[in-house]
Amino acid sequence: MTIADRWLLPDGMDEVLPPQASRMEELRRTLLDLYYRWGYDQVMPPPVEFLDSLLTGTGTDLDLQTFKLTDQLTGRLMGVSADVTPQVARMDAHSMRHQGPARLCYCTNVLRAKADQYQGGRSPVQVGVELFGHAGLEADLEILRLALLSLKAAGAAELHLALGHIGIYRSLVQAAALDHDRERALFEALELKSPGALAEQVEASVPDPALAEMFRALGRLHGGAEVLESAREAFAGAPAAVAEALAQLRALHQGVIEEHPEVEIYFDLAELRGYQYHTGMMFAAFVPGYGQALAKGGRYDDTGRAFGRARPATGFSMDLKLLATLVQSEPACDGIWAPAAGDGLSEAIAALRDSGHRVVQALPGQTTSPEVHRCSRRLSLVDGRWQTVAL
Amino acid sequence: MTIADRWLLPDGMDEVLPPQASRMEELRRTLLDLYYRWGYDQVMPPPVEFLDSLLTGTGTDLDLQTFKLTDQLTGRLMGVSADVTPQVARMDAHSMRHQGPARLCYCTNVLRAKADQYQGGRSPVQVGVELFGHAGLEADLEILRLALLSLKAAGAAELHLALGHIGIYRSLVQAAALDHDRERALFEALELKSPGALAEQVEASVPDPALAEMFRALGRLHGGAEVLESAREAFAGAPAAVAEALAQLRALHQGVIEEHPEVEIYFDLAELRGYQYHTGMMFAAFVPGYGQALAKGGRYDDTGRAFGRARPATGFSMDLKLLATLVQSEPACDGIWAPAAGDGLSEAIAALRDSGHRVVQALPGQTTSPEVHRCSRRLSLVDGRWQTVAL
Repeated sequence: MTIADRWLLPDGMDEVLPPQASRMEELRRTLLDLYYRWGYDQVMPPPVEFLDSLLTGTGTDLDLQTFKLTDQLTGRLMGVSADVTPQVARMDAHSMRHQGPARLCYCTNVLRAKADQYQGGRSPVQVGVELFGHAGLEADLEILRLALLSLKAAGAAELHLALGHIGIYRSLVQAAALDHDRERALFEALELKSPGALAEQVEASVPDPALAEMFRALGRLHGGAEVLESAREAFAGAPAAVAEALAQLRALHQGVIEEHPEVEIYFDLAELRGYQYHTGMMFAAFVPGYGQALAKGGRYDDTGRAFGRARPATGFSMDLKLLATLVQSEPACDGIWAPAAGDGLSEAIAALRDSGHRVVQALPGQTTSPEVHRCSRRLSLVDGRWQTVAL
Repeated sequence: MTIADRWLLPDGMDEVLPPQASRMEELRRTLLDLYYRWGYDQVMPPPVEFLDSLLTGTGTDLDLQTFKLTDQLTGRLMGVSADVTPQVARMDAHSMRHQGPARLCYCTNVLRAKADQYQGGRSPVQVGVELFGHAGLEADLEILRLALLSLKAAGAAELHLALGHIGIYRSLVQAAALDHDRERALFEALELKSPGALAEQVEASVPDPALAEMFRALGRLHGGAEVLESAREAFAGAPAAVAEALAQLRALHQGVIEEHPEVEIYFDLAELRGYQYHTGMMFAAFVPGYGQALAKGGRYDDTGRAFGRARPATGFSMDLKLLATLVQSEPACDGIWAPAAGDGLSEAIAALRDSGHRVVQALPGQTTSPEVHRCSRRLSLVDGRWQTVAL
């Protein structure tokens, strides 16, 4: 094996070098501090769980994304966390037992067995917030606002927000009494965004002409705020839950533009990809130049049911690795270069470090220049006293 | 499966709840800031690598500790990082290519297939520093000092430092020309700390009487600084490398007590357990009440050779999860409780948050008390203005 082969990293399993690692660390702190100020408490979910727990109630997509390990201690199958959100929901349901609303945040590595086009690499650093115990729109709106603030904190200038609601599709499927196979076929056709494929599936599976027309309309209903008006007409005869979902989207739209009027809002009532356990409003935030969403979230009630407590839940998450590529800051070049030895030098260096300065001490024989180590000053013995002077 | 079963976590794979997660986050920042001020740049190693790369030059202990995964994309075997140190050495050797010394630090999750008594749980958060490119004692001393400062920063009051040097044992093994099996048997006997077992192995494997006596002495040489004097006599006829190792230990001892006179220093010249790739001085730092070392490190030259560049290296690492159990701070109770709605309320809350305050806004219908959310004040409309008042 050659040296180059030995160093090849698996696809999507990246190392992060300076200065990008510092940018990520800085952004991590900025975001967790933001969430703290909004009342969110940090948690750290287990990086590995038994597979039974990890995948309960989360659907097959997450199963396919999860690396499996055998526990040598018990022989049981374990999974490496591929998505923190359902884990935090279980922590809320089982370990924390708050009465009333609970606000939690996290920032942690996850692993994914497959890179997929919607989620970036296979080793994201997932950062996000979850709000449990409140079913109202106020909670959803808080989550939406925090997502937008997060992207702004990372340096995003131009923001696009895609809003949808799984309740519309679900209600229509229920009204049409579709079996699993027909529902999957229809879902695939909607995902393809192909009117032809959709019309074909609808014709094959939805005999009721009014419902059939609603499914076909669903495929067309994407665009600006006018989509909500068109949807009101298209779904006039739909189950009440559809009207309720549309009302929620209108209210969220209103709530977002009040605080973030510059954000471009887009509706897509048939966008269902990549939402695995959601039950209500869903959103994705985009920045020009990035092919994938930088933040993604929505409402996912009742995930904790299997763990003893059904709780309303809403939240979002991001990949810190991806998000930090927005950060433009150059690393500070404000270090102080110190010689390898000298009388009283240790004390002088310690005092500078204690007051917050970065002091890089030369090692005996070192010939590299101070600039390489991002130093702009030098510690010199001037008039019998250690002082910092320009390089 | 019952609800309790579903929640059972694999042994050593823990979740961290508030407020402990915040303490860990705070300590993470304290440590990374400390390393920054000492000139260390942060890196993030890949969480998963191909097994060939991950285990090159690290020995069988790490192999046993490493969870194996099959890469679905290539069919190749991958390993989840169980120890960041050799990864950082490869990053230094291959990806960074610094001329002269390079100082790197990190803080990242790792996974271990087996919990072992020296390393705590199976999901540590490994935090540490590595100094590459300098073979001198100054580098080792810097690492030792940083380890002690790290533990003090975490709140350790009473510190014990165990110092050793793999070069002594290695030189004697080389002088005795032991084959692999005999060397392993002798190593086991030394690890057992049993004079009987040691005497038996020495008699079986080391015919030279002077060398045999040195191996037996090795098993006795543990204790305070006087051990170094006894060792000088016991190893008078040993290879020159032994005297060199002893001189290094004396110099390190001197260097540590100059800056940290209160630290209890202990020498054990036969302590070899848990050091997998080390080549020179080795140390472990203990705090009373903890059965395992809180920081562990030493010199491990040439790990990068297989990746194209042999470089001197020295460093240490700790488990942030374990270390944070030293932190005694209670979480701040300084939040401001805000009502769910009110005229101009959003602006008042935003202003408070922008100036760094934690504001927890009630959600409509919420009945839990503000104290639960660590609030000590309340936002109230007083004389037509939103003001914070005591609860």
